[in-house]
Amino acid sequence: MRTLKLILAYDGTEYAGWQSQPHGFTLQDALESAIARITGGALRVTASGRTDAGVHALGQVVSFITESRLSLDVLHRALNAHLPRDIVVLSVDEVREGFHAIRDAKRKRYRYVIQDGPIGDVFRRRFAWHVFAHLHVAAMQRAAQSLVGTHDFCSFQSAGADRETTVRTLFEISLERGRGAGEEDVITLEIEADGFLYNMVRTIVGTLVQVGRGTQPESWPGEVLRALDRRAAGQTAPPHGLFLVDVKYE
Amino acid sequence: MRTLKLILAYDGTEYAGWQSQPHGFTLQDALESAIARITGGALRVTASGRTDAGVHALGQVVSFITESRLSLDVLHRALNAHLPRDIVVLSVDEVREGFHAIRDAKRKRYRYVIQDGPIGDVFRRRFAWHVFAHLHVAAMQRAAQSLVGTHDFCSFQSAGADRETTVRTLFEISLERGRGAGEEDVITLEIEADGFLYNMVRTIVGTLVQVGRGTQPESWPGEVLRALDRRAAGQTAPPHGLFLVDVKYE
Repeated sequence: MRTLKLILAYDGTEYAGWQSQPHGFTLQDALESAIARITGGALRVTASGRTDAGVHALGQVVSFITESRLSLDVLHRALNAHLPRDIVVLSVDEVREGFHAIRDAKRKRYRYVIQDGPIGDVFRRRFAWHVFAHLHVAAMQRAAQSLVGTHDFCSFQSAGADRETTVRTLFEISLERGRGAGEEDVITLEIEADGFLYNMVRTIVGTLVQVGRGTQPESWPGEVLRALDRRAAGQTAPPHGLFLVDVKYE
Repeated sequence: MRTLKLILAYDGTEYAGWQSQPHGFTLQDALESAIARITGGALRVTASGRTDAGVHALGQVVSFITESRLSLDVLHRALNAHLPRDIVVLSVDEVREGFHAIRDAKRKRYRYVIQDGPIGDVFRRRFAWHVFAHLHVAAMQRAAQSLVGTHDFCSFQSAGADRETTVRTLFEISLERGRGAGEEDVITLEIEADGFLYNMVRTIVGTLVQVGRGTQPESWPGEVLRALDRRAAGQTAPPHGLFLVDVKYE
Protein backbone atom coordinates (compact mmCIF):
# COMPACT_ATOMS: atom_id res chain seq x y z
CA MET A 1 0.00 0.00 0.00
CA ARG A 2 1.28 3.46 -0.91
CA THR A 3 0.01 6.91 -0.03
CA LEU A 4 0.16 9.20 -3.06
CA LYS A 5 -0.13 12.96 -3.29
CA LEU A 6 -1.32 14.58 -6.49
CA ILE A 7 -1.22 18.26 -7.43
CA LEU A 8 -4.02 19.17 -9.85
CA ALA A 9 -5.04 22.15 -11.92
CA TYR A 10 -8.59 22.45 -13.19
CA ASP A 11 -11.02 24.73 -14.92
CA GLY A 12 -14.04 24.35 -12.64
CA THR A 13 -16.54 25.91 -15.07
CA GLU A 14 -18.25 22.69 -16.10
CA TYR A 15 -18.32 20.95 -12.72
CA ALA A 16 -20.70 20.91 -9.78
CA GLY A 17 -17.76 21.70 -7.50
CA TRP A 18 -15.10 19.43 -6.04
CA GLN A 19 -17.02 17.08 -3.81
CA SER A 20 -19.11 14.11 -4.92
CA GLN A 21 -22.81 14.72 -4.32
CA PRO A 22 -26.16 13.21 -5.34
CA HIS A 23 -26.67 15.54 -8.32
CA GLY A 24 -24.19 16.74 -10.92
CA PHE A 25 -20.76 15.59 -12.03
CA THR A 26 -17.95 16.77 -9.80
CA LEU A 27 -14.18 17.06 -10.03
CA GLN A 28 -13.82 14.34 -7.40
CA ASP A 29 -16.00 12.01 -9.52
CA ALA A 30 -13.83 12.67 -12.57
CA LEU A 31 -10.60 12.01 -10.70
CA GLU A 32 -11.80 8.91 -8.86
CA SER A 33 -13.16 7.45 -12.06
CA ALA A 34 -9.82 8.01 -13.86
CA ILE A 35 -7.86 6.43 -10.98
CA ALA A 36 -10.25 3.47 -10.87
CA ARG A 37 -9.82 2.83 -14.59
CA ILE A 38 -6.02 2.88 -14.27
CA THR A 39 -5.52 1.00 -11.02
CA GLY A 40 -8.56 -1.25 -11.29
CA GLY A 41 -9.78 -0.48 -7.80
CA ALA A 42 -12.52 1.85 -6.60
CA LEU A 43 -11.35 4.31 -3.98
CA ARG A 44 -11.91 7.62 -2.31
CA VAL A 45 -9.57 10.55 -2.60
CA THR A 46 -9.14 13.34 -0.06
CA ALA A 47 -8.62 16.91 -1.26
CA SER A 48 -7.08 19.77 0.73
CA GLY A 49 -10.51 21.35 0.64
CA ARG A 50 -13.69 21.47 -1.41
CA THR A 51 -13.96 24.05 -4.11
CA ASP A 52 -17.43 25.26 -5.04
CA ALA A 53 -19.08 24.96 -8.44
CA GLY A 54 -17.26 27.23 -10.91
CA VAL A 55 -14.13 27.68 -8.75
CA HIS A 56 -10.79 26.77 -10.35
CA ALA A 57 -7.49 25.40 -9.08
CA LEU A 58 -3.88 25.94 -10.06
CA GLY A 59 -2.61 23.64 -7.31
CA GLN A 60 -5.26 21.56 -5.56
CA VAL A 61 -3.68 18.80 -3.44
CA VAL A 62 -5.25 15.36 -3.24
CA SER A 63 -4.15 12.27 -1.36
CA PHE A 64 -5.20 8.64 -1.64
CA ILE A 65 -4.04 5.16 -0.72
CA THR A 66 -3.49 2.61 -3.46
CA GLU A 67 -2.28 -0.95 -3.94
CA SER A 68 -1.19 -0.13 -7.48
CA ARG A 69 2.45 -0.87 -8.28
CA LEU A 70 2.59 1.40 -11.32
CA SER A 71 5.56 3.75 -11.30
CA LEU A 72 4.76 7.37 -10.43
CA ASP A 73 5.68 8.48 -13.92
CA VAL A 74 3.44 5.92 -15.63
CA LEU A 75 0.60 6.76 -13.27
CA HIS A 76 1.08 10.48 -13.99
CA ARG A 77 0.90 10.05 -17.74
CA ALA A 78 -2.00 7.59 -17.54
CA LEU A 79 -4.01 9.98 -15.36
CA ASN A 80 -3.57 12.84 -17.82
CA ALA A 81 -4.54 10.55 -20.68
CA HIS A 82 -7.76 9.50 -18.89
CA LEU A 83 -8.85 12.79 -17.32
CA PRO A 84 -11.14 15.24 -19.13
CA ARG A 85 -9.27 18.09 -20.82
CA ASP A 86 -10.21 20.62 -18.15
CA ILE A 87 -8.38 18.69 -15.39
CA VAL A 88 -4.64 18.07 -15.39
CA VAL A 89 -2.33 16.35 -12.92
CA LEU A 90 0.79 18.49 -12.44
CA SER A 91 2.70 16.06 -10.20
CA VAL A 92 2.46 12.66 -8.51
CA ASP A 93 4.53 11.91 -5.39
CA GLU A 94 4.67 9.18 -2.83
CA VAL A 95 4.31 10.54 0.69
CA ARG A 96 4.61 9.09 4.19
CA GLU A 97 1.87 6.76 5.42
CA GLY A 98 -0.76 8.76 7.21
CA PHE A 99 -0.35 11.93 5.13
CA HIS A 100 -3.74 13.61 4.96
CA ALA A 101 -4.39 16.42 2.46
CA ILE A 102 -6.81 18.33 4.70
CA ARG A 103 -5.52 17.73 8.21
CA ASP A 104 -1.85 18.32 7.39
CA ALA A 105 -2.36 21.53 5.38
CA LYS A 106 -0.60 24.46 7.05
CA ARG A 107 -1.36 27.31 4.66
CA LYS A 108 -3.52 27.89 1.64
CA ARG A 109 -3.22 30.53 -1.01
CA TYR A 110 -6.09 31.73 -3.21
CA ARG A 111 -6.24 34.18 -6.09
CA TYR A 112 -9.28 36.16 -7.17
CA VAL A 113 -9.37 37.85 -10.58
CA ILE A 114 -11.55 40.85 -11.43
CA GLN A 115 -11.89 42.54 -14.81
CA ASP A 116 -13.21 46.08 -14.61
CA GLY A 117 -14.57 48.54 -17.13
CA PRO A 118 -17.65 48.99 -19.30
CA ILE A 119 -16.97 46.09 -21.69
CA GLY A 120 -16.57 42.49 -20.56
CA ASP A 121 -13.57 40.58 -21.90
CA VAL A 122 -14.94 37.51 -23.70
CA PHE A 123 -11.69 35.61 -23.21
CA ARG A 124 -11.67 36.11 -19.44
CA ARG A 125 -15.35 35.60 -18.78
CA ARG A 126 -14.90 32.10 -17.32
CA PHE A 127 -11.95 33.19 -15.18
CA ALA A 128 -12.68 36.70 -13.92
CA TRP A 129 -15.54 38.63 -12.31
CA HIS A 130 -16.53 41.46 -14.62
CA VAL A 131 -17.29 44.66 -12.69
CA PHE A 132 -18.57 47.56 -14.81
CA ALA A 133 -17.20 50.33 -12.59
CA HIS A 134 -13.54 51.32 -12.76
CA LEU A 135 -12.15 50.20 -9.40
CA HIS A 136 -9.73 52.19 -7.22
CA VAL A 137 -7.21 49.40 -6.56
CA ALA A 138 -4.88 51.40 -4.30
CA ALA A 139 -7.80 52.07 -1.93
CA MET A 140 -8.74 48.37 -1.97
CA GLN A 141 -5.14 47.41 -1.21
CA ARG A 142 -4.92 49.78 1.76
CA ALA A 143 -8.35 48.71 3.06
CA ALA A 144 -7.43 45.03 2.84
CA GLN A 145 -4.47 45.39 5.20
CA SER A 146 -6.81 45.71 8.20
CA LEU A 147 -7.65 42.02 7.72
CA VAL A 148 -4.07 40.79 8.08
CA GLY A 149 -3.33 38.97 11.33
CA THR A 150 -5.18 36.56 13.61
CA HIS A 151 -8.85 37.45 13.86
CA ASP A 152 -12.30 35.99 14.22
CA PHE A 153 -13.44 36.13 10.58
CA CYS A 154 -17.07 35.14 11.22
CA SER A 155 -18.28 38.31 9.45
CA PHE A 156 -16.79 36.89 6.25
CA GLN A 157 -18.31 33.41 6.53
CA SER A 158 -21.43 32.39 4.66
CA ALA A 159 -24.37 31.31 6.77
CA GLY A 160 -24.85 27.58 7.14
CA ALA A 161 -21.20 26.73 7.61
CA ASP A 162 -20.34 24.91 10.81
CA ARG A 163 -16.74 25.18 11.94
CA GLU A 164 -15.32 24.62 15.40
CA THR A 165 -13.71 28.03 15.38
CA THR A 166 -13.96 31.00 13.08
CA VAL A 167 -10.54 32.35 14.09
CA ARG A 168 -7.99 32.27 11.27
CA THR A 169 -4.59 33.83 10.66
CA LEU A 170 -4.34 35.81 7.45
CA PHE A 171 -0.67 36.12 6.52
CA GLU A 172 -0.94 38.22 3.41
CA ILE A 173 -3.44 39.94 1.17
CA SER A 174 -2.49 41.99 -1.88
CA LEU A 175 -4.26 43.52 -4.87
CA GLU A 176 -2.60 44.65 -8.04
CA ARG A 177 -3.72 45.95 -11.40
CA GLY A 178 -2.10 44.16 -14.35
CA ARG A 179 0.79 45.95 -15.98
CA GLY A 180 1.23 43.91 -19.16
CA ALA A 181 -0.25 44.80 -22.55
CA GLY A 182 -3.96 44.03 -22.52
CA GLU A 183 -3.96 43.50 -18.74
CA GLU A 184 -4.69 47.06 -17.67
CA ASP A 185 -8.26 46.06 -16.77
CA VAL A 186 -7.29 42.93 -14.80
CA ILE A 187 -7.07 43.15 -11.02
CA THR A 188 -5.56 40.23 -9.15
CA LEU A 189 -6.04 39.62 -5.45
CA GLU A 190 -3.75 37.13 -3.70
CA ILE A 191 -4.53 35.95 -0.20
CA GLU A 192 -2.80 33.47 2.08
CA ALA A 193 -3.98 32.13 5.43
CA ASP A 194 -3.72 29.08 7.66
CA GLY A 195 -7.24 28.21 6.53
CA PHE A 196 -10.37 29.81 5.17
CA LEU A 197 -13.99 29.79 6.27
CA TYR A 198 -16.76 28.95 3.83
CA ASN A 199 -16.93 31.65 1.13
CA MET A 200 -14.40 33.76 3.06
CA VAL A 201 -12.33 34.83 0.04
CA ARG A 202 -15.40 35.63 -2.02
CA THR A 203 -16.95 37.69 0.80
CA ILE A 204 -13.70 39.59 1.35
CA VAL A 205 -13.57 40.33 -2.40
CA GLY A 206 -17.19 41.50 -2.47
CA THR A 207 -16.48 43.79 0.49
CA LEU A 208 -13.29 45.22 -1.02
CA VAL A 209 -15.03 45.89 -4.33
CA GLN A 210 -17.41 48.24 -2.54
CA VAL A 211 -14.35 50.20 -1.38
CA GLY A 212 -13.01 50.12 -4.94
CA ARG A 213 -16.28 51.53 -6.27
CA GLY A 214 -16.12 54.30 -3.68
CA THR A 215 -19.42 53.32 -2.04
CA GLN A 216 -17.66 52.48 1.25
CA PRO A 217 -14.61 54.09 2.90
CA GLU A 218 -11.24 52.39 3.28
CA SER A 219 -11.94 51.86 6.97
CA TRP A 220 -15.01 49.73 6.25
CA PRO A 221 -13.50 46.21 5.87
CA GLY A 222 -11.90 46.59 9.32
CA GLU A 223 -15.27 47.65 10.74
CA VAL A 224 -16.93 44.64 9.12
CA LEU A 225 -14.31 42.37 10.71
CA ARG A 226 -14.92 43.86 14.16
CA ALA A 227 -18.72 43.62 13.79
CA LEU A 228 -18.52 39.78 14.02
CA ASP A 229 -21.70 39.61 11.93
CA ARG A 230 -22.05 38.35 8.35
CA ARG A 231 -24.76 40.92 7.67
CA ALA A 232 -22.14 43.67 8.04
CA ALA A 233 -20.13 42.49 5.01
CA GLY A 234 -20.54 43.11 1.29
CA GLN A 235 -21.87 40.73 -1.32
CA THR A 236 -20.25 37.37 -2.00
CA ALA A 237 -18.24 37.68 -5.22
CA PRO A 238 -19.12 35.07 -7.87
CA PRO A 239 -17.19 31.76 -7.93
CA HIS A 240 -15.68 31.98 -11.40
CA GLY A 241 -12.99 34.53 -10.46
CA LEU A 242 -11.60 32.29 -7.71
CA PHE A 243 -8.53 30.03 -7.98
CA LEU A 244 -6.99 27.78 -5.32
CA VAL A 245 -3.32 28.57 -5.99
CA ASP A 246 -1.51 26.21 -3.66
CA VAL A 247 -1.52 24.41 -0.37
CA LYS A 248 1.53 24.34 1.85
CA TYR A 249 2.38 21.39 4.11
CA GLU A 250 5.16 21.00 6.68
CA MET B 1 -30.25 55.12 -44.05
CA ARG B 2 -26.92 54.91 -42.25
CA THR B 3 -23.92 52.65 -42.81
CA LEU B 4 -22.52 51.43 -39.51
CA LYS B 5 -19.22 49.79 -38.69
CA LEU B 6 -18.88 47.54 -35.66
CA ILE B 7 -15.72 46.16 -34.12
CA LEU B 8 -16.35 42.84 -32.36
CA ALA B 9 -14.43 40.47 -30.13
CA TYR B 10 -15.56 36.88 -29.75
CA ASP B 11 -14.64 33.53 -28.33
CA GLY B 12 -15.35 31.30 -31.33
CA THR B 13 -15.29 28.02 -29.38
CA GLU B 14 -19.04 27.40 -29.38
CA TYR B 15 -19.81 28.56 -32.93
CA ALA B 16 -19.84 26.91 -36.33
CA GLY B 17 -17.64 29.75 -37.63
CA TRP B 18 -18.55 33.26 -38.73
CA GLN B 19 -20.73 32.74 -41.74
CA SER B 20 -24.38 31.66 -41.74
CA GLN B 21 -24.82 28.17 -43.13
CA PRO B 22 -27.48 25.46 -43.28
CA HIS B 23 -26.26 23.63 -40.16
CA GLY B 24 -25.03 25.00 -36.87
CA PHE B 25 -25.33 28.35 -35.13
CA THR B 26 -22.82 30.91 -36.34
CA LEU B 27 -21.45 34.23 -35.12
CA GLN B 28 -23.19 36.00 -38.01
CA ASP B 29 -26.50 34.44 -36.95
CA ALA B 30 -26.02 35.65 -33.38
CA LEU B 31 -25.16 39.20 -34.47
CA GLU B 32 -27.92 39.53 -37.06
CA SER B 33 -30.47 38.23 -34.61
CA ALA B 34 -29.37 40.76 -31.95
CA ILE B 35 -29.51 43.64 -34.48
CA ALA B 36 -32.94 42.52 -35.71
CA ARG B 37 -34.33 42.47 -32.17
CA ILE B 38 -33.03 46.00 -31.51
CA THR B 39 -33.80 47.71 -34.81
CA GLY B 40 -36.87 45.68 -35.71
CA GLY B 41 -35.66 44.90 -39.21
CA ALA B 42 -34.06 41.77 -40.63
CA LEU B 43 -30.78 42.45 -42.39
CA ARG B 44 -27.48 41.06 -43.54
CA VAL B 45 -24.15 42.11 -42.16
CA THR B 46 -20.81 41.97 -43.99
CA ALA B 47 -17.68 40.95 -42.09
CA SER B 48 -14.08 41.70 -43.10
CA GLY B 49 -13.71 37.98 -43.60
CA ARG B 50 -15.09 34.69 -42.42
CA THR B 51 -13.47 33.01 -39.47
CA ASP B 52 -13.66 29.22 -39.25
CA ALA B 53 -15.29 27.22 -36.49
CA GLY B 54 -13.27 27.63 -33.29
CA VAL B 55 -11.35 30.72 -34.47
CA HIS B 56 -11.56 33.83 -32.25
CA ALA B 57 -11.48 37.58 -32.88
CA LEU B 58 -10.13 40.52 -30.94
CA GLY B 59 -11.18 43.00 -33.64
CA GLN B 60 -13.46 41.62 -36.34
CA VAL B 61 -14.97 44.42 -38.43
CA VAL B 62 -18.57 44.24 -39.62
CA SER B 63 -20.61 46.69 -41.67
CA PHE B 64 -24.34 46.96 -42.29
CA ILE B 65 -26.94 49.45 -43.48
CA THR B 66 -29.81 50.37 -41.19
CA GLU B 67 -32.83 52.67 -41.03
CA SER B 68 -32.61 52.72 -37.25
CA ARG B 69 -32.37 56.19 -35.71
CA LEU B 70 -31.02 54.96 -32.39
CA SER B 71 -27.92 56.84 -31.24
CA LEU B 72 -24.64 54.98 -31.64
CA ASP B 73 -24.21 54.81 -27.89
CA VAL B 74 -27.67 53.35 -27.28
CA LEU B 75 -27.18 50.87 -30.10
CA HIS B 76 -23.81 49.86 -28.64
CA ARG B 77 -25.19 49.17 -25.19
CA ALA B 78 -28.29 47.42 -26.57
CA LEU B 79 -26.16 45.12 -28.71
CA ASN B 80 -24.01 44.08 -25.77
CA ALA B 81 -27.13 43.49 -23.69
CA HIS B 82 -28.64 41.23 -26.40
CA LEU B 83 -25.56 39.34 -27.59
CA PRO B 84 -24.46 36.05 -26.01
CA ARG B 85 -21.69 36.45 -23.43
CA ASP B 86 -18.99 35.16 -25.78
CA ILE B 87 -19.49 38.01 -28.27
CA VAL B 88 -18.93 41.66 -27.44
CA VAL B 89 -19.19 44.84 -29.51
CA LEU B 90 -16.14 47.03 -28.82
CA SER B 91 -17.22 50.03 -30.87
CA VAL B 92 -20.00 51.32 -33.14
CA ASP B 93 -19.28 54.05 -35.69
CA GLU B 94 -21.11 55.63 -38.58
CA VAL B 95 -19.09 55.44 -41.79
CA ARG B 96 -19.46 56.86 -45.28
CA GLU B 97 -22.13 55.41 -47.54
CA GLY B 98 -20.64 52.60 -49.58
CA PHE B 99 -18.13 51.46 -46.95
CA HIS B 100 -17.66 47.73 -47.35
CA ALA B 101 -15.91 45.69 -44.65
CA ILE B 102 -14.34 43.20 -47.07
CA ARG B 103 -13.60 45.23 -50.18
CA ASP B 104 -12.14 48.22 -48.36
CA ALA B 105 -9.85 46.27 -46.02
CA LYS B 106 -6.19 47.12 -46.65
CA ARG B 107 -4.41 44.98 -44.07
CA LYS B 108 -5.30 42.26 -41.64
CA ARG B 109 -3.46 41.10 -38.58
CA TYR B 110 -3.78 37.66 -37.01
CA ARG B 111 -2.30 36.13 -33.86
CA TYR B 112 -1.66 32.45 -33.27
CA VAL B 113 -0.99 31.15 -29.76
CA ILE B 114 0.87 27.93 -28.98
CA GLN B 115 1.47 26.42 -25.56
CA ASP B 116 4.35 23.98 -25.46
CA GLY B 117 5.57 21.41 -22.97
CA PRO B 118 4.50 18.06 -21.59
CA ILE B 119 1.45 19.28 -19.65
CA GLY B 120 -1.44 21.14 -21.25
CA ASP B 121 -2.61 24.33 -19.54
CA VAL B 122 -6.30 23.84 -18.71
CA PHE B 123 -6.92 27.58 -18.70
CA ARG B 124 -5.51 28.08 -22.19
CA ARG B 125 -6.96 24.99 -23.83
CA ARG B 126 -9.67 26.91 -25.73
CA PHE B 127 -7.22 29.63 -26.83
CA ALA B 128 -3.91 27.94 -27.62
CA TRP B 129 -2.61 24.92 -29.52
CA HIS B 130 -0.90 22.59 -27.08
CA VAL B 131 2.30 21.09 -28.55
CA PHE B 132 4.03 18.51 -26.35
CA ALA B 133 7.56 19.17 -27.64
CA HIS B 134 9.54 22.14 -26.38
CA LEU B 135 9.79 24.42 -29.44
CA HIS B 136 12.88 26.31 -30.56
CA VAL B 137 11.27 29.73 -31.03
CA ALA B 138 14.39 31.56 -32.26
CA ALA B 139 14.69 29.06 -35.14
CA MET B 140 11.01 29.52 -35.99
CA GLN B 141 11.41 33.30 -35.96
CA ARG B 142 14.39 33.18 -38.32
CA ALA B 143 12.70 30.65 -40.61
CA ALA B 144 9.53 32.77 -40.81
CA GLN B 145 11.37 35.79 -42.24
CA SER B 146 11.69 34.06 -45.63
CA LEU B 147 7.92 34.52 -46.02
CA VAL B 148 7.98 38.31 -45.67
CA GLY B 149 7.35 40.22 -48.91
CA THR B 150 5.14 39.81 -51.96
CA HIS B 151 4.89 36.16 -52.97
CA ASP B 152 2.58 33.59 -54.44
CA PHE B 153 1.44 31.83 -51.24
CA CYS B 154 -0.42 28.97 -52.95
CA SER B 155 1.68 26.42 -51.00
CA PHE B 156 0.02 27.70 -47.83
CA GLN B 157 -3.58 27.62 -49.08
CA SER B 158 -5.96 24.79 -48.26
CA ALA B 159 -7.33 22.86 -51.20
CA GLY B 160 -10.81 23.84 -52.31
CA ALA B 161 -10.35 27.57 -51.98
CA ASP B 162 -10.98 29.57 -55.11
CA ARG B 163 -9.30 32.98 -55.24
CA GLU B 164 -8.51 35.11 -58.28
CA THR B 165 -4.88 35.35 -57.28
CA THR B 166 -2.81 33.64 -54.63
CA VAL B 167 -0.25 36.47 -54.50
CA ARG B 168 -0.24 38.34 -51.19
CA THR B 169 2.08 40.79 -49.46
CA LEU B 170 3.18 39.73 -46.01
CA PHE B 171 4.37 42.82 -44.14
CA GLU B 172 5.43 41.25 -40.88
CA ILE B 173 5.68 37.96 -39.08
CA SER B 174 7.09 37.54 -35.59
CA LEU B 175 7.20 34.85 -32.93
CA GLU B 176 7.96 35.40 -29.29
CA ARG B 177 7.97 33.30 -26.15
CA GLY B 178 6.09 34.91 -23.24
CA ARG B 179 8.22 36.64 -20.66
CA GLY B 180 5.69 37.20 -17.87
CA ALA B 181 5.23 34.94 -14.86
CA GLY B 182 3.39 31.79 -15.96
CA GLU B 183 3.83 32.66 -19.64
CA GLU B 184 7.14 30.91 -20.23
CA ASP B 185 5.33 28.16 -22.16
CA VAL B 186 3.25 30.50 -24.32
CA ILE B 187 4.46 31.29 -27.84
CA THR B 188 2.71 34.06 -29.75
CA LEU B 189 2.92 34.49 -33.50
CA GLU B 190 1.77 37.80 -35.01
CA ILE B 191 1.32 38.13 -38.75
CA GLU B 192 0.15 41.02 -40.90
CA ALA B 193 -0.59 41.04 -44.63
CA ASP B 194 -2.76 42.75 -47.22
CA GLY B 195 -4.91 39.62 -47.18
CA PHE B 196 -4.77 35.94 -46.39
CA LEU B 197 -5.62 32.81 -48.36
CA TYR B 198 -7.85 30.14 -46.89
CA ASN B 199 -6.10 28.53 -43.88
CA MET B 200 -2.91 30.44 -44.73
CA VAL B 201 -2.03 31.42 -41.15
CA ARG B 202 -2.76 27.94 -39.81
CA THR B 203 -0.65 26.30 -42.53
CA ILE B 204 2.24 28.69 -41.91
CA VAL B 205 2.03 27.88 -38.18
CA GLY B 206 1.96 24.13 -38.82
CA THR B 207 5.03 24.49 -41.05
CA LEU B 208 6.96 26.64 -38.57
CA VAL B 209 6.18 24.22 -35.73
CA GLN B 210 8.06 21.51 -37.65
CA VAL B 211 11.09 23.81 -37.64
CA GLY B 212 10.56 24.47 -33.92
CA ARG B 213 10.50 20.73 -33.23
CA GLY B 214 13.73 20.34 -35.19
CA THR B 215 12.23 17.96 -37.74
CA GLN B 216 12.82 20.45 -40.57
CA PRO B 217 15.65 22.97 -41.10
CA GLU B 218 15.23 26.75 -40.91
CA SER B 219 15.44 26.95 -44.70
CA TRP B 220 12.37 24.77 -45.15
CA PRO B 221 9.50 27.33 -45.01
CA GLY B 222 11.20 29.28 -47.84
CA GLU B 223 11.47 26.07 -49.84
CA VAL B 224 7.79 25.32 -49.24
CA LEU B 225 6.92 28.82 -50.50
CA ARG B 226 8.95 28.36 -53.69
CA ALA B 227 7.46 24.89 -54.34
CA LEU B 228 4.07 26.49 -55.15
CA ASP B 229 2.41 23.27 -54.01
CA ARG B 230 0.26 22.75 -50.91
CA ARG B 231 1.60 19.22 -50.49
CA ALA B 232 5.04 20.70 -49.72
CA ALA B 233 3.82 22.43 -46.52
CA GLY B 234 3.34 21.17 -42.98
CA GLN B 235 0.09 20.33 -41.24
CA THR B 236 -2.65 22.89 -40.75
CA ALA B 237 -2.55 24.03 -37.13
CA PRO B 238 -5.88 23.68 -35.28
CA PRO B 239 -8.34 26.61 -35.31
CA HIS B 240 -8.54 27.31 -31.59
CA GLY B 241 -5.12 29.03 -31.36
CA LEU B 242 -6.07 31.59 -34.02
CA PHE B 243 -7.27 35.16 -33.39
CA LEU B 244 -8.20 37.84 -35.91
CA VAL B 245 -6.52 40.82 -34.21
CA ASP B 246 -7.56 43.73 -36.39
CA VAL B 247 -8.40 44.96 -39.84
CA LYS B 248 -6.97 48.18 -41.19
CA TYR B 249 -8.85 50.42 -43.62
CA GLU B 250 -7.76 53.61 -45.42
